[in-house]
Amino acid sequence: MEEHLKVEHPYLPSTLRLPHYAANDLTTLDILAMFFSIVVVVCAITWYLASKRAHTNCALIKLKLCWFASCAGIHFILEGYFALYHRTIAGEMSFLAQVWKEYAKGDSRYMSDDVFTVCMESMTAWVDGPLAFLALLAFLQNKPYRHLVQITLSLCQLYGDVLYFSTAYMEGFKHGPYNHPLYFWFYFFFMNILWIIIPSICIVESWIKLTAAQAIQDMSKNKKS
Amino acid sequence: MEEHLKVEHPYLPSTLRLPHYAANDLTTLDILAMFFSIVVVVCAITWYLASKRAHTNCALIKLKLCWFASCAGIHFILEGYFALYHRTIAGEMSFLAQVWKEYAKGDSRYMSDDVFTVCMESMTAWVDGPLAFLALLAFLQNKPYRHLVQITLSLCQLYGDVLYFSTAYMEGFKHGPYNHPLYFWFYFFFMNILWIIIPSICIVESWIKLTAAQAIQDMSKNKKS
Repeated sequence: MEEHLKVEHPYLPSTLRLPHYAANDLTTLDILAMFFSIVVVVCAITWYLASKRAHTNCALIKLKLCWFASCAGIHFILEGYFALYHRTIAGEMSFLAQVWKEYAKGDSRYMSDDVFTVCMESMTAWVDGPLAFLALLAFLQNKPYRHLVQITLSLCQLYGDVLYFSTAYMEGFKHGPYNHPLYFWFYFFFMNILWIIIPSICIVESWIKLTAAQAIQDMSKNKKS
Repeated sequence: MEEHLKVEHPYLPSTLRLPHYAANDLTTLDILAMFFSIVVVVCAITWYLASKRAHTNCALIKLKLCWFASCAGIHFILEGYFALYHRTIAGEMSFLAQVWKEYAKGDSRYMSDDVFTVCMESMTAWVDGPLAFLALLAFLQNKPYRHLVQITLSLCQLYGDVLYFSTAYMEGFKHGPYNHPLYFWFYFFFMNILWIIIPSICIVESWIKLTAAQAIQDMSKNKKS
């Protein structure tokens, strides 16, 4: 009877029970092409908007704003979907569910309702998502709190991602096929290491900029007193 | 045979297997008295040092520096001990192990080698600990990066603690006696909610201070151009 109820799925460990699993009807190529097309469109719009403002019309700043815009969409929409539907996602057939079912081939914690993954992704969706959108607006409008949003967002992303990698490492990378070129190296490693590297650079940039601003203010106070 | 090997322990859930568990020889009162005495001594030294400097000789700043000093000790020494000895801590008899064995009556994840708890505590020990010490030094020496250390430390503490509470909630508070006045409300709730409330206040303070500094710098740039 137990054997009869067993549903085949492409996730590791193979002992993982997902009785509600339904296979994707989109191919891997469909999913990747659609996902990256949306990212490209979001970046193109952001690049155009940033080009029209003197204080953001610089290639490096425009690249950073494309990053914030992509993060806003990925965190709030894609990760927000996971945060809402993590219990049933393995059986859902919407586009966003299919993206997660594809990604989870590299990390099955997204299918198994893993407590840490759900909590971390909820923080990412509902805190980092709005922060990324606020960072984009703050730089476009040259607000004085722009670097504070940048450092707050980047620290949250970095902290969450370090925990994401370290919990996977502590569990012996048992949630996916270790060393697999697509599932391990591209999905699990590359698509997450970006959120270690780019936030780290953003933190250093904001740290330098804000320290300089504080130093000038301290000096002017010292002169007055 | 299995029954014979079963070791009694005071943790929940009662199905938790801790064959290496050894009961504390210090009483709850001994442990709490020693722990809080050390905190008081650390705070007294910090208060004295801060009183001798004009820019930190203000009750609110001194209280904040006492917080940083306590955090430095708790994160680096107490949580560092857990990060190093989490596998064997249930059977250890050092003072620090006895503190954890007492605390774990409110949250047994500290005895059961829980992956999220170990990773989060390692981050707290090796990142937040040095940052708290750096924050103390930066304020004592009035460094221009003092508020950046404060916001970085506080965001890391807040993020870690929100995950700590939310994972416990998601698991139905099954790791301790729910609603117990000492174990749930004092150890688990009160001793952790401090790291939600105080870092939140610190983040708001640094955000306001650094935004003001950036605004002044932006204005002077606009005047020049």
